[in-house]
Order: sequence, then C-alpha cells, then structure tokens
Amino acid sequence: MPTIVVDVMPKAELLDPQGKATTGALARLGHGKFENVRIGKRFEFGYDGEVTEAVLAEVRQMADEILSNAVIEDVVSITVDGEAR
Amino acid sequence: MPTIVVDVMPKAELLDPQGKATTGALARLGHGKFENVRIGKRFEFGYDGEVTEAVLAEVRQMADEILSNAVIEDVVSITVDGEAR
Repeated sequence: MPTIVVDVMPKAELLDPQGKATTGALARLGHGKFENVRIGKRFEFGYDGEVTEAVLAEVRQMADEILSNAVIEDVVSITVDGEAR
Repeated sequence: MPTIVVDVMPKAELLDPQGKATTGALARLGHGKFENVRIGKRFEFGYDGEVTEAVLAEVRQMADEILSNAVIEDVVSITVDGEAR
C-alpha cells in the first residue's frame, strides 16, 4: 500500500509559542546554536489503491481543507512513498 | 542559515487515538480509501553555523533525548536543507 505523508507547519508570520519554548529549552540545555524552532504536524497514511493524479488532487484538497487550518497553517509538503508530489 | 528538520512519529505498535479519529473523520467525509492515519510532529529549526558531522551527532542526540519521547515515539527522519542525513 502506498504511504502518503502530508507536512503541515504554522504560518511563518505567526508566533509559535510551543516552538519558542523548545528553542529556549534547547539553549538552557547547552544547544544554543539551534534557532527559531517551529513545530508542525506530520500526517502519515496509506491509500488503498494506486495513487493517480486524481487521488493526488484529492489528497491536496484534504490537506488544505481537513488536515490543516489555512488561517494559521501551511501545507509545506506532500510525498508519496518518499517522493515529493 | 541551514534548515534542519526532525520528524517524530508515534511508535508503530502503539495506538494513535488522534490518528484513528482523523481516519474516521476522513471516511465520514467521503475519503474512505485513506487508511491508518498516524499523526506525528515535525520540528524545523536553523543552525547558526555549518552543519558538520559533530553538529549532526548533536542533532541526533537532541532528537532522541529532547525532541522525542523514546518510550512512545520514534525519530523517523532528520534532514538538512532537504537532504536526508
């Protein structure tokens, strides 16, 4: 079964308090050269069938309308079996 | 500044209730051929300097010990400027 991965990140212009807290924690733990941590979501799922262009269009629509909140998040990548689509 | 991405997923042998709920929601919304959704985290951050092998080792350690919880999660990929490392 093909594996589809959709990556969703908070929009660049928005604050990411979770990421900011992580940046601070890394610095306190001695990893101060790592900057501007942002934390998003990674959705991984299978598809029961062949991933055609029509299925890809369906995935893109799902990613934009169901898996992410377009007000605060961007879909940054969609891959099928490791290949960017 | 190089961009480092660390992907963390719930371990395959553990239930992922959030993913299960999403699988159900997709099915109800007419996307029933997408199966076994699992939801993990995507950490994106910059590094102030060149990413040497020593820095990569530091990132791997951070990923295993700080960014993920090894009891319930796996670090599934680390990329630097889009390249798997």
